[in-house]
Amino acid sequence: MPKPAVKDTITTVSETENSDLENLIGYNLKRADVIAKSGFQQAMGDTGLSARVFTALSLMVTYPNIAQSSLSRIMGIERSGLVAIVDELEARGYLKRAPVPGDRRVQALIPTQAGQQAYDQALTRVQTQEARQFAELSAEEKQTLLGLLKRIRQMEPMT
Amino acid sequence: MPKPAVKDTITTVSETENSDLENLIGYNLKRADVIAKSGFQQAMGDTGLSARVFTALSLMVTYPNIAQSSLSRIMGIERSGLVAIVDELEARGYLKRAPVPGDRRVQALIPTQAGQQAYDQALTRVQTQEARQFAELSAEEKQTLLGLLKRIRQMEPMT
Repeated sequence: MPKPAVKDTITTVSETENSDLENLIGYNLKRADVIAKSGFQQAMGDTGLSARVFTALSLMVTYPNIAQSSLSRIMGIERSGLVAIVDELEARGYLKRAPVPGDRRVQALIPTQAGQQAYDQALTRVQTQEARQFAELSAEEKQTLLGLLKRIRQMEPMT
Repeated sequence: MPKPAVKDTITTVSETENSDLENLIGYNLKRADVIAKSGFQQAMGDTGLSARVFTALSLMVTYPNIAQSSLSRIMGIERSGLVAIVDELEARGYLKRAPVPGDRRVQALIPTQAGQQAYDQALTRVQTQEARQFAELSAEEKQTLLGLLKRIRQMEPMT
């Protein structure tokens, strides 16, 4: 006689709708983030671009001559954490560093043509992927979601 | 003459509203998740409970006798990743393992009284914290947000 599957031997939890977790915004944000991240990674595929590197590339293309200090502040990461990201973008040939007249401590980051092209392609991939992954949401629902998420983003982090 | 602050020497980006990132659901989810996580960590304070341990404790309290395989499936993590979580809950005296008649390979997880009490206190902290952190959102907006996030959660992860 075949044994039942392990998951059926004790408690089969096909729904967690009775769980306290379901009413927590933080829990739902985290789980939705995991789903979205899987889509992002699939979209990036063989480019090997991580979310952080993509984000830094995007900001550098949007704001050429951005300072590393601005980039780390906008991304919400430590400057030390940005170093590896900037190094990777430079190793890929996607940025060049330019001196800032009058302040030798600061370097401006400027995308190269290769960086601009790589970004354009990556952005198209991400946008196409999101359109596919979130197709069940209407355009209006997406705008509502983005609006609510932006309001949360504007709240101060708790420290 | 004082030097201007570094962030003002090149590009001051106080708003990123022109960035492509702002229209990406994945980016906004990630940033909102970071804000929420800071609130969760503050709420947990000296309990030292991580989000994963809190989640496992919550599910074990909600579904006593849950199997580890069910727990890892619901949490969306590998069974190997659950081992450390279950070990921590056991070391804290929050769970006991019970054998399952007829299947010695499987152990059911049962919260202890201490585990139940710790969970009740932790849940109150998280709920109080969320009410404070997300006070700018109306009850209706919170329900809208939760509904949209749940729909994303139900989408298949991209692999």
